[in-house]
Amino acid sequence: MIIKMKSAATRADVEYVVARVHSLGLKSHVSEDGGQVLIGILGSFDDATPSAFTGLRGVERVLPTKRAYRLASREYRPEPTEIRLGDVVIGGDQVVIMSGPCSVESRDLLIEAAILAQKAGATVLRGGAFKPRTSPYSFQGMAEDGLKILAEARDITGMPVITEVMSSETVPLVSEYADILQIGTRNMQNFHLLFAAGRQPKPVLLKRGMMSTIEELLLSAEYIMSQGNTNVILCERGIRTFETATRNTLDLNAIPVLKELSHLPVVVDPSHATGRRSLVPAMARAAIASGADGLLIEMHQNPEQALSDGDQSVTPDQLSNLVEECRRVSVAIGRTL
Amino acid sequence: MIIKMKSAATRADVEYVVARVHSLGLKSHVSEDGGQVLIGILGSFDDATPSAFTGLRGVERVLPTKRAYRLASREYRPEPTEIRLGDVVIGGDQVVIMSGPCSVESRDLLIEAAILAQKAGATVLRGGAFKPRTSPYSFQGMAEDGLKILAEARDITGMPVITEVMSSETVPLVSEYADILQIGTRNMQNFHLLFAAGRQPKPVLLKRGMMSTIEELLLSAEYIMSQGNTNVILCERGIRTFETATRNTLDLNAIPVLKELSHLPVVVDPSHATGRRSLVPAMARAAIASGADGLLIEMHQNPEQALSDGDQSVTPDQLSNLVEECRRVSVAIGRTL
Amino acid sequence: MIIKMKSAATRADVEYVVARVHSLGLKSHVSEDGGQVLIGILGSFDDATPSAFTGLRGVERVLPTKRAYRLASREYRPEPTEIRLGDVVIGGDQVVIMSGPCSVESRDLLIEAAILAQKAGATVLRGGAFKPRTSPYSFQGMAEDGLKILAEARDITGMPVITEVMSSETVPLVSEYADILQIGTRNMQNFHLLFAAGRQPKPVLLKRGMMSTIEELLLSAEYIMSQGNTNVILCERGIRTFETATRNTLDLNAIPVLKELSHLPVVVDPSHATGRRSLVPAMARAAIASGADGLLIEMHQNPEQALSDGDQSVTPDQLSNLVEECRRVSVAIGRTL
Amino acid sequence: MIIKMKSAATRADVEYVVARVHSLGLKSHVSEDGGQVLIGILGSFDDATPSAFTGLRGVERVLPTKRAYRLASREYRPEPTEIRLGDVVIGGDQVVIMSGPCSVESRDLLIEAAILAQKAGATVLRGGAFKPRTSPYSFQGMAEDGLKILAEARDITGMPVITEVMSSETVPLVSEYADILQIGTRNMQNFHLLFAAGRQPKPVLLKRGMMSTIEELLLSAEYIMSQGNTNVILCERGIRTFETATRNTLDLNAIPVLKELSHLPVVVDPSHATGRRSLVPAMARAAIASGADGLLIEMHQNPEQALSDGDQSVTPDQLSNLVEECRRVSVAIGRTL
Repeated sequence: MIIKMKSAATRADVEYVVARVHSLGLKSHVSEDGGQVLIGILGSFDDATPSAFTGLRGVERVLPTKRAYRLASREYRPEPTEIRLGDVVIGGDQVVIMSGPCSVESRDLLIEAAILAQKAGATVLRGGAFKPRTSPYSFQGMAEDGLKILAEARDITGMPVITEVMSSETVPLVSEYADILQIGTRNMQNFHLLFAAGRQPKPVLLKRGMMSTIEELLLSAEYIMSQGNTNVILCERGIRTFETATRNTLDLNAIPVLKELSHLPVVVDPSHATGRRSLVPAMARAAIASGADGLLIEMHQNPEQALSDGDQSVTPDQLSNLVEECRRVSVAIGRTL
Repeated sequence: MIIKMKSAATRADVEYVVARVHSLGLKSHVSEDGGQVLIGILGSFDDATPSAFTGLRGVERVLPTKRAYRLASREYRPEPTEIRLGDVVIGGDQVVIMSGPCSVESRDLLIEAAILAQKAGATVLRGGAFKPRTSPYSFQGMAEDGLKILAEARDITGMPVITEVMSSETVPLVSEYADILQIGTRNMQNFHLLFAAGRQPKPVLLKRGMMSTIEELLLSAEYIMSQGNTNVILCERGIRTFETATRNTLDLNAIPVLKELSHLPVVVDPSHATGRRSLVPAMARAAIASGADGLLIEMHQNPEQALSDGDQSVTPDQLSNLVEECRRVSVAIGRTL
Repeated sequence: MIIKMKSAATRADVEYVVARVHSLGLKSHVSEDGGQVLIGILGSFDDATPSAFTGLRGVERVLPTKRAYRLASREYRPEPTEIRLGDVVIGGDQVVIMSGPCSVESRDLLIEAAILAQKAGATVLRGGAFKPRTSPYSFQGMAEDGLKILAEARDITGMPVITEVMSSETVPLVSEYADILQIGTRNMQNFHLLFAAGRQPKPVLLKRGMMSTIEELLLSAEYIMSQGNTNVILCERGIRTFETATRNTLDLNAIPVLKELSHLPVVVDPSHATGRRSLVPAMARAAIASGADGLLIEMHQNPEQALSDGDQSVTPDQLSNLVEECRRVSVAIGRTL
Repeated sequence: MIIKMKSAATRADVEYVVARVHSLGLKSHVSEDGGQVLIGILGSFDDATPSAFTGLRGVERVLPTKRAYRLASREYRPEPTEIRLGDVVIGGDQVVIMSGPCSVESRDLLIEAAILAQKAGATVLRGGAFKPRTSPYSFQGMAEDGLKILAEARDITGMPVITEVMSSETVPLVSEYADILQIGTRNMQNFHLLFAAGRQPKPVLLKRGMMSTIEELLLSAEYIMSQGNTNVILCERGIRTFETATRNTLDLNAIPVLKELSHLPVVVDPSHATGRRSLVPAMARAAIASGADGLLIEMHQNPEQALSDGDQSVTPDQLSNLVEECRRVSVAIGRTL
């Protein structure tokens, strides 16, 4: 249950409601959303409980939470959220291609990759400065040096930059350099990181945990949004199943499901999902046909020499073809690219 | 390891090879494929074993089986298999829509459904006369009466008919009426049924088990093909995962993977996979964009009153829109519909 | 919803009820259980529907089916079902060890294996005459010759014999030779086979599908029981998950869950579940500690030379140790072995 | 590949090896383990590469990494690791019961729970001060106040305390109060947290991600160990599968597998795995029978009123019975409790 206070509600009004919550043996969680206070209620209540609050001063509405998330839901905001970064709009008519190498390996390689990706049709540059690696002995990324190179690439190409943030401590640092903060699949339920991302101003691309349900993805988006940052982009990147022919199983069913449940933009990462270069174009086209607002595609000038994830990176030429194919599918379903 | 005998090999040649197999402590499995004898070898052998056979009389080639399936593999047959049913070609340039109700409920309903499906753009009629049901207390289908109604609908509309066969005993009966035999997800490893389907002349649509890997699907196709019937259509219909937002997880990754591994046509059933009408159009479009050769779409004049699977059936009008959208996606990727 | 007719109900009473079912636009499924007629109702009904039947002549009770299965449920029969085969009781205090080779490979090997298994502590002999194999080129079993050898082993050792039946056509044949019919994991939803097994007199051991839910297992048991054969033994044999360290994931949680939901005996097959000999003893002990009524353990005199599944077979010595360990665990939880 | 330097190797020796690594176009990762330097090598190398290092000064051994983890492996340390906390030894002959409420809710409740748990047979006290919650509107724990209460309970009962740490920032705080740091299932791949836990002196209980493989669990343990803290306890707590009858599927197969692969102690949490109180005793017994070194059991004086996870908490009386049953199983397999 969530109590939505009026914009005009005073602090005393809020405190009165909270006291009442406690007097009923319930817990409260107060958050703010665009100047309006929301009071989440926790504990065992029944259908009659809302009536204990509907008449109180300052209370606008008592929302029975059929869904555990509110701010991320379609009911809360029926029209789609559009996120603007200069000329790029994520969640609008245009399908957005975000591309670049898995990790920033050197200044020259990255700058060259950025120019090639842009030429191939990308409008957002991706690249990892901090790398989550399953093994402690794997390459862990260039950290702040990598962020600076990404910023330089943005200056040269004009493309906004998306890069991963892996811990709440580094959120301020990454937020300073990046245009979009990416939260990776292994951190989807790192709640401290979610809260920290919710308290800085840049949009956040939240990847679905490879082991997480669609509802949990929306609940994690809610963590970010509950702190005031409502510019969240959801990303499907493959789930773990019994099938081993592909690295993960890209769950495109999630796209129309998320579009029904939420107003947030949804993008797809076929590179990490399939783990195989040869499958990326087919899944990229399918993602757009299913309604995705954009794609994250790993590209590398020389995939065989990449320090990480070379098997799944396409070459600049392959990216160019892929974008062309995706453009035709976009037009076929009434969108642009 | 598989030994491919020459067309001109005699029975004595085959027997000599088999005896040698046994003398090495190995087992043999003899099958025929278009006049050529294949001898499958079972047991513990090493890289040197093939040389024990390469020189023997009648032996054309010794195939080291990197893959456990042969006849279904791209290596065995590089060009795509096309299956012709009158004007309809499955596996060619044209994307094929197979539609109709989940089960045959009455003559009049089915005939009407067939005409409506055809008008909406379907070129193959689907409908179940035998129904696999998880509960013994559920509607089990109209059996032969249903087959007769399907045949009548074919006579009226000219559309070939696909229907499910559930047991090896009923293969002859279903084969008499149907143009394509469907083997359902729960029977993908019913090996007796696979063998029986391989010994009759009609094409077989083989649904992936909801719990089966892509390799197992191809091995089950191999069961059918090893008996002489090489007209097999593979069908992705959703796999079981931890996600409960959709009934199953339609695994579109399987489409490009199957196209790499096999020459057989691949179709997709988004109705059973998602279990929800509202998700069918998006997944139908995505299936085609991923490279599928056709779709199985459940349609019902009045989904709320269907005796089975009403939640996932689209109406004739929805089918018509879906086909129109799929046609545009087909054209965008260089195919027709 | 299920209508339970009185034992004294006449055929006319049943027909009257069925007619009423149909007049309400619902479907019926009539079955018999120990002289009592059960009428399963299918279709869209609401809470008020039962009242249309409670007063009718011959109706004993109208059971709202919270659960989709009835005969297999604890509500239907609160006391545990015990299945007797001579001195062996499955489902009683004593934990039963069923052991033997994966497949019958020759008379001498099988007879020797039977004697060794008995010496090690087994009281039921297992062995496959018909083998379900993923590849058509694998060893398919000795068929009736294998059944005869099993019968001979029973004559020699006195142990009842369990063996797999793979198709409804072969049910009469297998039923003639075997003491318990085993239905394998890939056939758990082969509904024709389930019905056929329900119409013969021997107990049936039903293996859970490797990707079937516990509820589906009980529904498949219901298929058998609805035909009159209530001697069903449930078997957990591992489910398919993302984990690849073991062949399947033995789901021991299913044991206490099944014991809550059903009165049927439950046994566990750690050999097929883990696929690795070294893991079998630990999982055998754990199965008993979790409440299983018995174990299926594959044993082979010379696992390296087995024609199938050698990796998971224990040697006679290992079986002997395993039984000794399991006996101590059985006693620790108040049972015997 | 990992290069193990001699204890006597100088800093110059290490630098020389690292320079050679780089001259071959490879990356290095230097860590220390008990005074010995380990140099992890990253990049594309072949079978001949080790020979480039074997002769160098200060190099003890070049380990080809068949397994991606080293310090956690049985090869690295054949004898089992025992972790001592006063009188309690985890990983020795004695099976250890860790129990207490899911979260610290108040001082009095916790102190009472600690005394009751101890009386029932627990020797380690568990309780959450920081709670990972899927929803931002759920109770998030008492934080440092909770830690102080746990420390007080330790003073009163003498039991060491285990509690969860959720972020790298709070590692020093939790490490100050707790005797064992718990890292939860959602943080198993929060690599910053793993590194931080590896740099403090208290033992770490690492829960397997609910959709992580056994190998990934060991790699995460390696993250901690690579920083110098080798006192890691592994914990199986259920994995996510298609089965919904239990909250997760407790994967007891992991116990013997982990025991084969690693020398680290392994404990089991049947409470979170099953999510249902009635299943906890059976799975607790089975865990011990499969070889677990201990159990984490949630207990609450009044489960119906717990602020979190009440459904899975046993009462003190139930805990007492469970410990008694587990003691008998422990003795049956040659251990104590």
